[in-house]
Amino acid sequence: MDVVRPGPAVRTRLEVPEDSLFGADNLPYGVFAPRGGEYRVGVRFGEFVIDLAAALDDSVFAASDLNAFLAQGPARWRAVRERVRELVSSEITTDAVHSLADVTLALPVRIGDYVDFYASIDHATNLGRLFRPDAEPLLPNWRHLPVGYHGRAGTVVVSGTEVVRPRGQRRTDSGVPDFGPSRRLDIEAELGFVVGVGSSLGTPIDISEVEDHLFGVALVNDWSARDIQAWEYQPLGPFLGKSFATSLSAWVTPLAALDSARIPLPEQTPPPLPYLSVDEPWGLDIELTVCWNGQVVSHPPYGRMYWSPAQMLAHMTANGAAARSGDLFASGTISGPEAGQRGSFIELSWGGAEPVEVGGERRTFLEDGDEVVITASARGVGGRRVGLGEVRGRVLPAGARG
Amino acid sequence: MDVVRPGPAVRTRLEVPEDSLFGADNLPYGVFAPRGGEYRVGVRFGEFVIDLAAALDDSVFAASDLNAFLAQGPARWRAVRERVRELVSSEITTDAVHSLADVTLALPVRIGDYVDFYASIDHATNLGRLFRPDAEPLLPNWRHLPVGYHGRAGTVVVSGTEVVRPRGQRRTDSGVPDFGPSRRLDIEAELGFVVGVGSSLGTPIDISEVEDHLFGVALVNDWSARDIQAWEYQPLGPFLGKSFATSLSAWVTPLAALDSARIPLPEQTPPPLPYLSVDEPWGLDIELTVCWNGQVVSHPPYGRMYWSPAQMLAHMTANGAAARSGDLFASGTISGPEAGQRGSFIELSWGGAEPVEVGGERRTFLEDGDEVVITASARGVGGRRVGLGEVRGRVLPAGARG
Repeated sequence: MDVVRPGPAVRTRLEVPEDSLFGADNLPYGVFAPRGGEYRVGVRFGEFVIDLAAALDDSVFAASDLNAFLAQGPARWRAVRERVRELVSSEITTDAVHSLADVTLALPVRIGDYVDFYASIDHATNLGRLFRPDAEPLLPNWRHLPVGYHGRAGTVVVSGTEVVRPRGQRRTDSGVPDFGPSRRLDIEAELGFVVGVGSSLGTPIDISEVEDHLFGVALVNDWSARDIQAWEYQPLGPFLGKSFATSLSAWVTPLAALDSARIPLPEQTPPPLPYLSVDEPWGLDIELTVCWNGQVVSHPPYGRMYWSPAQMLAHMTANGAAARSGDLFASGTISGPEAGQRGSFIELSWGGAEPVEVGGERRTFLEDGDEVVITASARGVGGRRVGLGEVRGRVLPAGARG
Repeated sequence: MDVVRPGPAVRTRLEVPEDSLFGADNLPYGVFAPRGGEYRVGVRFGEFVIDLAAALDDSVFAASDLNAFLAQGPARWRAVRERVRELVSSEITTDAVHSLADVTLALPVRIGDYVDFYASIDHATNLGRLFRPDAEPLLPNWRHLPVGYHGRAGTVVVSGTEVVRPRGQRRTDSGVPDFGPSRRLDIEAELGFVVGVGSSLGTPIDISEVEDHLFGVALVNDWSARDIQAWEYQPLGPFLGKSFATSLSAWVTPLAALDSARIPLPEQTPPPLPYLSVDEPWGLDIELTVCWNGQVVSHPPYGRMYWSPAQMLAHMTANGAAARSGDLFASGTISGPEAGQRGSFIELSWGGAEPVEVGGERRTFLEDGDEVVITASARGVGGRRVGLGEVRGRVLPAGARG
C-alpha cells in the first residue's frame, strides 16, 4: 500500500498532444480501478483517466458501471461534459488523475439486453451468398426493416478479455454432426450503441426522440463460430455460435463527441415506413481498422451503413418492448463493397476459399493464440480525429478454462 | 397505517386442505409485498404466504428477488426447504404469515439472460408445417440439438401484468409490408427453468452436474405476434414478434418438489451426442391447462417433451457461455399429438383456418380484452398433485400505454 499523506490539493494542467485521438473533443466514459482501489467511473483524456467522483465530488460516479449516470438523461450528460471540458482546459486536482497505464478497465455498462443488428447491406449480401448460395442473397424483409436478434448479455466482456475457443456441434459432410472445438472461429467488427435513458413497457421510442435516449458509441467484436452457427441457426437464429463471448471496448464515446462525424444516411430504397423515417436521417463517418496479429487486414467503413442507429432503436422498441439504461445494441458486421473493407474473416477469406496473408502465413479463420484488435476513429472538429476505444481479444485453446 | 403493538409473538398452526395443490410437498418460492410493505421472499403454503426473512430470521430473504438465495446452492436450498417443512407441520409466528389475497406478487427472479427453446417435437412439427408448408417440417438439426434462441430478459413480466397488443411490420399479400397492430396475437404455453447456481465463462455445465445448478420450475406464456414473426424471422430468428412481453408465474417450484413427477424421457432417435447423454434421462410428468376467457381449450402434456431440462442447460453452456443465478430458460411451446394438447392458438386453429369455439364465438387469435390463464400440476407423492403457479395475462388494445 502507498502511504497517503493528506495535504493541500495539488492542481495541474494535463498535457495532451494536439493530434491525440482522445483530446478535449472526445472525452469518452469508462469504468476503471486504480491499483488496489475500487472500480469507479472515469473519463479518458489522452493517456490520462480522470476520476469523476473525485473531480466533480459526485457520488453517482463512485459506481462500478455508468448506468446511474446514463439514467440521468441528456441535460445532465451535457452539463457533465461541459464541466469536464472546463477541467481539462484549465487545472485539475492531481488526486483525481491517473495514468491510463496504471489502471484496470472494466465493462463500462451493466447490460440488461444486448441486441445485434444486421445493418450493413454489403455484409448481409456477402453472408447471404456464402450461407445460401442458391438463393437471392438479401431476403425479402431486409430492405424493409433492420433485421436483428437478441444476443447473450451475460457474456459481453470488456476489451482485453481472452476468448476461449468454443466447442459445439459441427456439421460434417456425412450430414451427421460431431462435437468439438470450432474450426471456423471468426470476428465481426461492429459499432455498439449504449442506451442512456430507457423506456417503459408498451411505449415505443419515437424515431424523432432517439437522441433523448441514446448515450454513446463503443466498439464491438462479435466473435462468431461459423461452423456452429451454420448448423444451429435455422429456424430460430444464431445461438451458441455467438453466445460464448462478445467483446466491448472499455470506452464509450458520447454522441455529443460525434457531431462532426454526422453524415447523411445513404439513400434507402424503398423509402422506410413512417415509424423509421425522419426528415434528415444521419449516419456516422467512422472508419474502423481490423488488425490481425499486428497486421492491418481491413478498414470497414461505418459511413456506408444502410440502417441508422436511430432506426435501429426506434425499430427495437416499436412493438412496445422496454429499453433499459445500459442496454447495448450493435450494428452487425460493418463491411464495405471492397475486399479490404470487410469486417469479418468469413468475408475476407470468402468462406475460407481465398486465404489471407497474415504475418507471412496463409490464413482463413482464427487459430489459437491469434490476437485481433479493432480500432476506429471518427471525423472530428477542424480536421482532427476522434478515437473510439479499441476492442482487443486473444484466442485461447478450447478447454483452456474448462 | 395500522397501529403496530409490540407484544409477545403469537404462534399458530396453518391449516391447508389435504388436496391443496400448494401443500407441504410443494412450497414454491416467490417475491411478495404485504400491503404498504416492501418486497421480500416468501414461500406459498395453501392460501398463505410465509415471510422467510421473518420466519427464519435470515436477511438473504429480505430482498426483492430470489437471486442471492439461488446463488447459495443446493445444500442450502435443501436446508431451507427442510426448515420450512418443519414450520408448516408445527407452529409458526403469525408475524411471518400473510394471506395470499392480501399481498402483491412481483417477478420472483432478476433475470440476466432469457433463452427460449423449441423442445417439443409435436410443436416444432406443427409450426414447420404452418410456416414452411412446402418443406420437411423438422429441419435437419432438430433431432441433434435442442434448438434455442435468446429472448428479451427486460420484458419478462410477472403473471397478471396486462399485455399491450404490439404494433409491427405485417406481411401483406402485395409482398410490401404495412405497419400496425398485430392481427395474429398468440400465446405459447411453456415451462420455464430457473438457474440457481451459475457457471463461469469458458466452463460448460456438464450434463451430469445439472442438478447442482438448476433450482426450479415456473410457468411461462411466451406471447407471440405471428404476423410480425413470420415477416421478420429470417435469417436471424424471432425478435419483435416475441420481445414485447413474456409472462412468468409468480411462484417457482423447486425441483425438489417434483421428485415424484420424474419420468423417463421419451426415446431419442438418433441417440444424443455424449455431451447431451446421461444413463437415465428424465422428463417431468406435468400437465398444463390453457384457459381462454374462462374456457379450457387445451391440456399440453409436458411429459412428451423431446429434449430434457438437463439437455437444454448442458447445451446452452456447452460453448463456454456463462450462466448466472436467476437466468431463465424455457422449454418452448408444449404441444402433444392431439388437437386438445396444443399449446398455442396458431396450432389450435391451424394457422387460423380452423376456428375454435370460445364462449360461444368462433375464434382464431387473441382479441383485445381476452384473458389467458395457464395453470399446471405435477404428479406428487401418494396420488396428490403439486401445483405450479398460474400465469395470467389480459390483452390491452395497441397504444393503450403509448
